[in-house]
Amino acid sequence: MAVRNSTHFGIAGYYSLMAIKEGMIGIAVTNTRPSVPPTSGVEPILGTNPLTAGCPTDEDFPFLIDCATSIIQRGKVEVYNRLKKPLPKGLVINNKEESEIDPTKILNNLGNNTAALLSFGRMGEENGGHKGYGYATLVEILSSALQDGIYLKDTAGIKENGKKYLKVGHFFLAINIENFIPLDTFSKITGNIMKGLRNSKKAPGCDRIFTAGEKEFEAEMERCKTGIPINENLQQDIKIMQEELGLKKYNFPF
Amino acid sequence: MAVRNSTHFGIAGYYSLMAIKEGMIGIAVTNTRPSVPPTSGVEPILGTNPLTAGCPTDEDFPFLIDCATSIIQRGKVEVYNRLKKPLPKGLVINNKEESEIDPTKILNNLGNNTAALLSFGRMGEENGGHKGYGYATLVEILSSALQDGIYLKDTAGIKENGKKYLKVGHFFLAINIENFIPLDTFSKITGNIMKGLRNSKKAPGCDRIFTAGEKEFEAEMERCKTGIPINENLQQDIKIMQEELGLKKYNFPF
Repeated sequence: MAVRNSTHFGIAGYYSLMAIKEGMIGIAVTNTRPSVPPTSGVEPILGTNPLTAGCPTDEDFPFLIDCATSIIQRGKVEVYNRLKKPLPKGLVINNKEESEIDPTKILNNLGNNTAALLSFGRMGEENGGHKGYGYATLVEILSSALQDGIYLKDTAGIKENGKKYLKVGHFFLAINIENFIPLDTFSKITGNIMKGLRNSKKAPGCDRIFTAGEKEFEAEMERCKTGIPINENLQQDIKIMQEELGLKKYNFPF
Repeated sequence: MAVRNSTHFGIAGYYSLMAIKEGMIGIAVTNTRPSVPPTSGVEPILGTNPLTAGCPTDEDFPFLIDCATSIIQRGKVEVYNRLKKPLPKGLVINNKEESEIDPTKILNNLGNNTAALLSFGRMGEENGGHKGYGYATLVEILSSALQDGIYLKDTAGIKENGKKYLKVGHFFLAINIENFIPLDTFSKITGNIMKGLRNSKKAPGCDRIFTAGEKEFEAEMERCKTGIPINENLQQDIKIMQEELGLKKYNFPF
């Protein structure tokens, strides 16, 4: 299914989970606002374009990879900004292809084309940067060309009747496992693959290997028990919001 | 289509090109011999597992991304070995998670689990190493679970009647573009995306931005004109082979 004239669709993995619940493999992609340069370029022209997929296992949780084709996405820069912490080097560049680590500066400069988030693999072909760039392009195509939609720079906003509208496209694919093999057999094999990966030899200093979706499942279980932790800056924001709006309804423990 | 009990299928992109010639989007994946560790692991348990895709454009050549989910694949280590050149740091690790650069040592050690090719994104989650690991796992699943096939360590070889057989699986997907939109419209948009990327601002010192498949198309055109260049080591191998077999048929210009 191809979707046009949409906006931010939330958690990409959510749509793959819908397919997984029906015993299917789910793939979901979307293009997003320009923020990623091609290999050998510095202009943010591609989105962080998540390429996400998941499938059932015989465990308590599915295999689910939900990530941007850039090393980090805009939301993570916003988190660094709220925490008032610099980014690690090598994730974001300025228009001279130099590393940029100040999150406030990056958020400002993404808008005026002087900062860009690198594709996974970082800069250059030696590290495989062209692979992240290639997958980001694939996502851009799937999210636009199948429905004559918005792509590249136009994802920054389209002017209609004097107003600017953010528009993006999505592509969803569900593969019915039972068309190939009984779901139980499929899920047993995927479960075995997950266990095989987790049980393989750990790197020195690492006591655990995770499979995609495992950390998120554990976080969900934990949050359901103990609630959602929020950092001090956000607590402050919420206090101000509560006072301004006279809200009493939400009683946070602070 | 899911394929079981297969062996090395050659150029992954070849199958996407078959779909492209029919006006379709092509996706082709395969699992391969164990050589890649999970994030936080050092044991080669996943294959270099290419995740490849392509689609038509209105240009002389299609968009075609054909690459391993590891930074480099075994074939590239073999090339370094023939050229007698060390690898760049950070692409291959030993079982202490230290960088390994000697190609002969790496080729030997891949077989005894003491060398491993890193997923794109390199080590750790900060650089996005878990993304390459996640996509490699997706390819492992698509290449095995849909047809009750061989996976993880078993791709190193299965013993049957006292003999060892290399077995892997593949998965192919062709999406008929005309089910969504006229092929001409699709190809015009993908062509525009390619041109938009190429025409975006270059990094200092770079005079050209390529799109996926462009370098390979140019190489094909060049090879058709001037033939296939081979390095000195290979020339030597071919001379020996010609002498041993008494071959006169292939006259190389040396």
